[in-house]
Amino acid sequence: MYRTNNCGELNSSFVDQEVKLSGWVNKIRTKGFIIWIDLRDRYGVTQLVFDKERTDASVFEAANNLGREFVIEIDGTVIKRKDVNQNISTGEIEVLVSNLKILNTSITPPFTIENQTDGGDELRMKFRYLDLRREPIKENLIFRNKLSLEVRNYLSDNGFLDIETPYLIKSTPEGARDFVVPSRMHPDQYYALPQSPQIFKQLIMIGGLDKYYQIVKCFRDEDLRADRQPEFTQIDCEMSFVSESDVLEQFEGLILHLLKKFGKTVKAFPKLTYKDAIENYGTDKPDLRFDMKINEITDNVKGKDFNIFDKAEYIGCLVLNDKAELSRKEIDELTEWVKRPQVGANGILWIKNNADGSIKSSFDKFFTSDDLTSLTKDIGSKSGDLILIMAGTKKETLEHLGTLRVEIGKRYDFINFDLFCPAWVTDFPLFEYDEEEKKFKSMHHPFTSPNKESLGHLDSDPEKVIANAYDLVLNGNEIGGGSIRIHDYNTQMKIFEILGMSKKEYESQFGFLIEALKYGAPPHGGIAFGLDRLAAVLNNKDVIRDFIAFPKNNSGKDLMIDAPAKLTKEQLKDMKEE
Amino acid sequence: MYRTNNCGELNSSFVDQEVKLSGWVNKIRTKGFIIWIDLRDRYGVTQLVFDKERTDASVFEAANNLGREFVIEIDGTVIKRKDVNQNISTGEIEVLVSNLKILNTSITPPFTIENQTDGGDELRMKFRYLDLRREPIKENLIFRNKLSLEVRNYLSDNGFLDIETPYLIKSTPEGARDFVVPSRMHPDQYYALPQSPQIFKQLIMIGGLDKYYQIVKCFRDEDLRADRQPEFTQIDCEMSFVSESDVLEQFEGLILHLLKKFGKTVKAFPKLTYKDAIENYGTDKPDLRFDMKINEITDNVKGKDFNIFDKAEYIGCLVLNDKAELSRKEIDELTEWVKRPQVGANGILWIKNNADGSIKSSFDKFFTSDDLTSLTKDIGSKSGDLILIMAGTKKETLEHLGTLRVEIGKRYDFINFDLFCPAWVTDFPLFEYDEEEKKFKSMHHPFTSPNKESLGHLDSDPEKVIANAYDLVLNGNEIGGGSIRIHDYNTQMKIFEILGMSKKEYESQFGFLIEALKYGAPPHGGIAFGLDRLAAVLNNKDVIRDFIAFPKNNSGKDLMIDAPAKLTKEQLKDMKEE
Repeated sequence: MYRTNNCGELNSSFVDQEVKLSGWVNKIRTKGFIIWIDLRDRYGVTQLVFDKERTDASVFEAANNLGREFVIEIDGTVIKRKDVNQNISTGEIEVLVSNLKILNTSITPPFTIENQTDGGDELRMKFRYLDLRREPIKENLIFRNKLSLEVRNYLSDNGFLDIETPYLIKSTPEGARDFVVPSRMHPDQYYALPQSPQIFKQLIMIGGLDKYYQIVKCFRDEDLRADRQPEFTQIDCEMSFVSESDVLEQFEGLILHLLKKFGKTVKAFPKLTYKDAIENYGTDKPDLRFDMKINEITDNVKGKDFNIFDKAEYIGCLVLNDKAELSRKEIDELTEWVKRPQVGANGILWIKNNADGSIKSSFDKFFTSDDLTSLTKDIGSKSGDLILIMAGTKKETLEHLGTLRVEIGKRYDFINFDLFCPAWVTDFPLFEYDEEEKKFKSMHHPFTSPNKESLGHLDSDPEKVIANAYDLVLNGNEIGGGSIRIHDYNTQMKIFEILGMSKKEYESQFGFLIEALKYGAPPHGGIAFGLDRLAAVLNNKDVIRDFIAFPKNNSGKDLMIDAPAKLTKEQLKDMKEE
Repeated sequence: MYRTNNCGELNSSFVDQEVKLSGWVNKIRTKGFIIWIDLRDRYGVTQLVFDKERTDASVFEAANNLGREFVIEIDGTVIKRKDVNQNISTGEIEVLVSNLKILNTSITPPFTIENQTDGGDELRMKFRYLDLRREPIKENLIFRNKLSLEVRNYLSDNGFLDIETPYLIKSTPEGARDFVVPSRMHPDQYYALPQSPQIFKQLIMIGGLDKYYQIVKCFRDEDLRADRQPEFTQIDCEMSFVSESDVLEQFEGLILHLLKKFGKTVKAFPKLTYKDAIENYGTDKPDLRFDMKINEITDNVKGKDFNIFDKAEYIGCLVLNDKAELSRKEIDELTEWVKRPQVGANGILWIKNNADGSIKSSFDKFFTSDDLTSLTKDIGSKSGDLILIMAGTKKETLEHLGTLRVEIGKRYDFINFDLFCPAWVTDFPLFEYDEEEKKFKSMHHPFTSPNKESLGHLDSDPEKVIANAYDLVLNGNEIGGGSIRIHDYNTQMKIFEILGMSKKEYESQFGFLIEALKYGAPPHGGIAFGLDRLAAVLNNKDVIRDFIAFPKNNSGKDLMIDAPAKLTKEQLKDMKEE
């Protein structure tokens, strides 16, 4: 037996008890005749004392030779501490050590095992097992574990079955690139790793299992962006005999349950159409932790000989309450920020609706004070507000205003970080027109059901068809998305036709699903959540990598195990010969 | 809304209520003026009635045109049934239909959707989504789902953290063959799919997370045997600061919890050494649902000029209580059975210790009645017993006797199928000597810790070293196995040396683990269970494929989606060019 207790549970009720603890040497402080050691394990830190008067000389000597991250086992007596440490659960006590055994030694770690470490990202990934010892990373993983189990129990209580779908499946060249797996037993043939269990969960519904979920790894061989992982985890769900509102209700329940369980404050769970989200927030994943909306002022500002406005398809603005006192420098900084290639805007125009009643703008040459006052009235701006304006094409300008809005929210504390603001975004278009390939593409995937009301447009105006698709947005992050699926063979055929897929194409890729639709497929729909992202967002964090035990870097490498790597000659031969 | 109730919940308390149900047409019976339809969903079957007198003519007509597996939605009134069906939960009632809507049609399924189907294995796999609709397969998957959740909650309650390990890892050419995944971003480099998360869970322990579990897919590119899947699911666990007895106690707790939860009768949980298991049962996964042990009689039967005995290294027998009346034909059948190449024995000799006191054997030429009587006494056989004897090399003969034992248990009802008999098998040898390659190999894997007591043999007699390894056996199946791992750098080096691995070899494959051992690795150990097998064994079933939603066939093919398959030219180009 290595321990009677862990390092997080001893308190004053244990005083005078003999205990055995094991853990890592976190910190050593020496005062000649006395040595304090912080002993750390997953559960906490306990202070050990070695004291020349009360500790056996050989034990004291051994303690003197310990180093950081040594693994030790000690016996000792719990005693009251003189200086109570209120910051930790064991802060009332310390353990006077009578016996010390070194279970393992450690060389000096390449970075400090502290909450604030001196280790850079790549170094921390290379020595991930040491990074895991740090409190923040450890807590992230413990949280993720709780989140998963909470999701499982909620879904199970709601009748969902955890059903595993295969990882070695068939490649479907549409969409993102698949990772493929050569088959040794079947020469020249390949499995593919799933980008999602989409088709399998539909087949599970066709198989009559009614409600399915799975917390499952998915794979995408994309050129990686910052904080994108080639393998990621999805909470994947599907239900039968449901319409869109049934699915929304069910998963609103899940999200509210989780937010409550983890002590988060939620005020509302609104439903926005895609169109409204774009027009009001410039994005389909609006951050609703602050009210600021985009105001369209296209019609209000044209015809004043100001070329920027007159030639623009769209002009919109954001009203920053009580920010009229922002300095020219600060506005310039924002302007530079939106002009960076990551945003790509042309610039920002502004109106200061000063607190003293005066009004000023960056285009005073073209607009009188009265013009400006009238404009501010129209958009409901009050004295003291700063108004930031952008102009250009509608699509891009809204996007830029949306990006600016979030930046302003963070930069000027408009965002209440204590608030959690989930929302549904609905009524997505079913298709997007791909200008390059000159054809329609599915906005989600080709199995998404068109909305009944817009079925009439399928032949004439595919771009007008609304999908029964929905995204779940939380604090400006898309954390889930799904749709009602097509369960009708003829509708599915129609969609393939509009997408310009030949019979050969859809049959070779989805033949089994199409076949399955002939055998009594029930109406069904579902949703998938990104677990990595959800865990991060629930902790108000941006870096999902810190919520993954063994993440890959931005070029898809695992720096710790050094993967991918070359194969041996024998392996290559094996693969090619058979 | 497609339903107010499901097809498994209506009973007499619902009589007179208006309900809406959706489901599949399971059976149709017509009597001219009345039509009964069994409506099926995941939850059960409800009988619908269409009646010319009480049902609208158009609805009756529509019902007349329904076919099997059509998906329908109906409105109706719950009424009492005249002939109560005791076999189903809804047997007291039926629903008089007022409204019928066809949600989807179905062509005729390729096999009947019944408990006993006419569909062969391959056909059922090709149309797996239809096979899932059958009660036995559906119930298997529901059971598996319950089992997983029960395991998770038990482990979570015991402080284990569910931590996901990566799927895209590095190939380790030792052991079974890896499935590999070419990296497009890193030319000529490959990921591998994990055969198990072994090294990662050790790193999680080195990372201080103390207790880990995961229910995780593992992959092995082996030449498939019957009922072996290239991807399979493991309940993977690891603990820090534990010795072997701690791990056994923890997981004995898990198994007993599961057996109790699922209403299974358990009498004992013995611990057998590997040596005892082999000598008493001829296998390291003994079926303890019946007592019959192997008796060694080598010394008892030599020196009677019977060549088969005299030249044999080992002679052993099984005593079949009260089976002396077995006919010559039955014994011949058993003999043929053991001579099949799957077993490969030479034959069976027998002694009939008849109920009337007479004694007879298949080698009466060499043994007198007294010889035989004396022998039967030595092995404790009573009148009425049949004794089956095998002779040859020790290793093979024990194996053959072990195989015969289980066959006899099944064939002659020695096995009590209501009993669940878990056991630990411990004290495995650390190494096996590979005669072909003339070197030692790890019996489990190279990270298995040698038993402290036998450390002295490491240099002199590696084959005598006992491992801190253990298997969990249930009803003759190995359902789990694990070990205490090496946490000490020098011991790990020693093991690599004995295995004849060069520095280059172990560093290229396990360099990161070896490096990690330098930074304060704690003592740790764990276990992994086969979930597919566990689910089957808990249901007294042999075919694990029936507990997998989408299994592959014996040549690793998914017959439903037709994978593996060829890639498109673009995909191949993508893979090779970059």
